[in-house]
Amino acid sequence: MIEVEIKVKIDNKDEIIEKLKKFGFKFIKKKFQEDIYFNGIDRDFRKTDEALRIRDDDGTFFITYKGPKLDNISKTREEIEVKIEDKEKMRLILKKLGFKEVLPIRKIREIYKKGDIIASIDNVEGLGLFLELEKSISDSEITKKDEILNELLDLLKSLNISKDKIIRKSYLELRGEYGKI
Amino acid sequence: MIEVEIKVKIDNKDEIIEKLKKFGFKFIKKKFQEDIYFNGIDRDFRKTDEALRIRDDDGTFFITYKGPKLDNISKTREEIEVKIEDKEKMRLILKKLGFKEVLPIRKIREIYKKGDIIASIDNVEGLGLFLELEKSISDSEITKKDEILNELLDLLKSLNISKDKIIRKSYLELRGEYGKI
Repeated sequence: MIEVEIKVKIDNKDEIIEKLKKFGFKFIKKKFQEDIYFNGIDRDFRKTDEALRIRDDDGTFFITYKGPKLDNISKTREEIEVKIEDKEKMRLILKKLGFKEVLPIRKIREIYKKGDIIASIDNVEGLGLFLELEKSISDSEITKKDEILNELLDLLKSLNISKDKIIRKSYLELRGEYGKI
Repeated sequence: MIEVEIKVKIDNKDEIIEKLKKFGFKFIKKKFQEDIYFNGIDRDFRKTDEALRIRDDDGTFFITYKGPKLDNISKTREEIEVKIEDKEKMRLILKKLGFKEVLPIRKIREIYKKGDIIASIDNVEGLGLFLELEKSISDSEITKKDEILNELLDLLKSLNISKDKIIRKSYLELRGEYGKI
């Protein structure tokens, strides 16, 4: 799966939600997410631009691999995700294998949706408020990537947010520390 | 979890099953298992005596890490297992991370049980028939390991199988090839 995604720092949360609703976005849910990230065994994922994470999505758990970003604007990248039954055991397996655990990222995520587009308002512990616009495509639709990116950029413009505000860094990178490595 | 386990090569399957039943073992089920093993990224699991595997247990999937064996007789070792929703995606994640896939081990397993003891008769593709006797204990019960091992050895004796027939090698090692590495 390819995730076409852009992210911006925001201050005016209520104003953005109001606009999203005006554009036809519907509130889906609000949830707590904790992401436990790991650095690589034979390579530094900060350098290879990969990510390995266990997500606690309101009590449902996933293991996710993210490949390097595919362009210079968006956060578009390959993402492979598998639902798992136990967070702590998976965490232990990854540590036994030699992956180095990083301090977790915790956030409250409010999700809005219109068709295939997901708009998430994230309140990230220690980092503040962000808006993520996202649309997923299958690996075979990779040629549509730029078209979808433009669709998301148009939406950003409609929300009165400048393209210059786009952040390609992950929350992990933004925090400026990669923890115990 | 600690798995105290002994394994022997057998020829006389029907005779063993008859004895197990006489000793009070009950037939639980017969199933197909496919184990996809991976070798390490920074170390050779054949040398460190570890294992990483995805098990397809009749359509239910697990990822399992096995630590080195803890004594010189049995196959007792730490085992951490997590149920996963998708086999192929997990396989892809492990490959992306750099684990090297090994040719799979396929077997038909017939399971018999008496109390906490599990007796499995395995018909392994390319290797033939084996009997595994197994009892699991929690990590904190590690001191009971030898006592349980003796219990399993007594059972083996009652089955008229010599202690000399005990095999500590995994099916992977017995096959004598570790596949594409």
